[in-house]
Amino acid sequence: MAVYTDISEAELTAFIAQYDVGELLSYKGIAEGVENTNFLVHCEKANFILTLYEKRVNPDDLPFFLNLMEHLAQSGINCPLPVARKDGEVLGQLAGRPAAMITFLEGVWMREPTVEHCSAVGTTLAKMHEAGQSFKMERKNSLSLHDWRPLWNKCMEADPEMEASLRTEVEATLDKLEANWPSDLERGVIHADMFPDNVFFLGGKLSGIIDFYFACTDALAYDIAVCINAWCFEPDHSFNVEKGAALLEAYNAARPLSEEERQAMPTLCEGAALRFMLTRFYDWVTTPEGSLVVKKDPNEYIRKMRFHAKIDDISGYGLSR
Amino acid sequence: MAVYTDISEAELTAFIAQYDVGELLSYKGIAEGVENTNFLVHCEKANFILTLYEKRVNPDDLPFFLNLMEHLAQSGINCPLPVARKDGEVLGQLAGRPAAMITFLEGVWMREPTVEHCSAVGTTLAKMHEAGQSFKMERKNSLSLHDWRPLWNKCMEADPEMEASLRTEVEATLDKLEANWPSDLERGVIHADMFPDNVFFLGGKLSGIIDFYFACTDALAYDIAVCINAWCFEPDHSFNVEKGAALLEAYNAARPLSEEERQAMPTLCEGAALRFMLTRFYDWVTTPEGSLVVKKDPNEYIRKMRFHAKIDDISGYGLSR
Repeated sequence: MAVYTDISEAELTAFIAQYDVGELLSYKGIAEGVENTNFLVHCEKANFILTLYEKRVNPDDLPFFLNLMEHLAQSGINCPLPVARKDGEVLGQLAGRPAAMITFLEGVWMREPTVEHCSAVGTTLAKMHEAGQSFKMERKNSLSLHDWRPLWNKCMEADPEMEASLRTEVEATLDKLEANWPSDLERGVIHADMFPDNVFFLGGKLSGIIDFYFACTDALAYDIAVCINAWCFEPDHSFNVEKGAALLEAYNAARPLSEEERQAMPTLCEGAALRFMLTRFYDWVTTPEGSLVVKKDPNEYIRKMRFHAKIDDISGYGLSR
Repeated sequence: MAVYTDISEAELTAFIAQYDVGELLSYKGIAEGVENTNFLVHCEKANFILTLYEKRVNPDDLPFFLNLMEHLAQSGINCPLPVARKDGEVLGQLAGRPAAMITFLEGVWMREPTVEHCSAVGTTLAKMHEAGQSFKMERKNSLSLHDWRPLWNKCMEADPEMEASLRTEVEATLDKLEANWPSDLERGVIHADMFPDNVFFLGGKLSGIIDFYFACTDALAYDIAVCINAWCFEPDHSFNVEKGAALLEAYNAARPLSEEERQAMPTLCEGAALRFMLTRFYDWVTTPEGSLVVKKDPNEYIRKMRFHAKIDDISGYGLSR
């Protein structure tokens, strides 16, 4: 949750006047998203999400994110559409920050996803990957294999009390992933953060995907690995193989997985678990007490890393060979 | 800001089914209100605010608050209307907490109120006081004169490092207010917390009042004193006599102030400043670091107390005799 920046009605009224959306009716800071400040804005003509991009987002990346949403929305993927101002621009400035208005998507995110939801995520992820193939811009994944060791070093610096056994375990995992990371998988646009809170459902159907602010160009199958970590474990952190099967089968039906992608899946899943462990760990030890950010426990992802380390075939995730 | 309690879509869908509002379309935790958890809920038939009452609200008080909103809304005051379930009840249970749905009011609150806004607040406050005269329920003000000394004692216990000069000053203020507090003023329903964030404007006009969760039965003029503290000081904490005049003149035009109310105004204003100083001070020293609540600086109200202590006539607030 996050409302980092408050804005006055005078600032917002002036900002809104640049758009063809009618008069401002109301705006509320909403407690979703951890990187940026988000307001739900009601205007005469429609409802919008107004995002102020805080310092963790690189302004140079914003055209990639906004153009990607536009491209995907136009390709039939339900995602927010950046709203163009009267002068055609989609990116503005508000309260000293880059700011954009995007269309508001109805739908609710699943606090307790079921097998059916996992299946819907698999289908939509594959469709998104297909739609992304015609997107021309590229963005490097700033949280991929080669970024993990430097981030881990920062974690160790920030937490000198860390248990020796954890150090040994993570170093060994890094060694193994660096030795085995696949480099020949099909690449394209990935969402890279498709957790349940970024996927909306309405009447049992997947109604939209939001929050493309980690999207980048990387191995498509890595995006599946992120989703397996995010959707297929139970609240007690145990793996639910039915959910894994549902997600993978649905994906595979819409975009068949190559032999290389199947073989790489356990490594990709272990890497994805490490990536989320690292950012959570870093936030855990560096976020000051008294901050308004809810810190997420990194231990969940240490357990997931250990689970994936024992899987040696995609059948372990429920997809039969 | 506050989202203390998250709710799942399954819980909310079951809750919503008790109302004639159509299907649930979306819900977002909103960063407003410091006592309760609030969600902006979009349903097929309309938008609503869903409030989960957290432990600082006494459940026995909820019928007073909800019936008051209904009474005022039916008397022409723009305020949220509690939505009745199909069985006629307005108060339910959600996530183990008392919960109610109220109508969503469009409008924005003024971060930087002007003289015109103060005038509108004066008029609406007076109209609300008149409309409240036919409301039959009563609720004791739990933060009035006799509650201040015990609360101050708790503050001193919680902050043993407190400066001696502040202790002396507050004790003297308590002595003075206890000796001079008026007991013969006209009583009725007061809002008791009509700060700028609880008053919405739309197109320059006051469009609604929200957050009746401090409302109670007390001297009507005390509510004016709260508003003088909340609306008529500048960001540098200096008093703006034009704003005071606008608020008081507008109030007086809609509900003429009695001689007793005029005479009591400096005492009421000093008491109101003390009341907000005390709750802020108590929250300041007792809210744990790492809490998600934004703490408000009590010093602002110490300065206001000192200002009011020097005023000996309502003309000091801009209302000519």
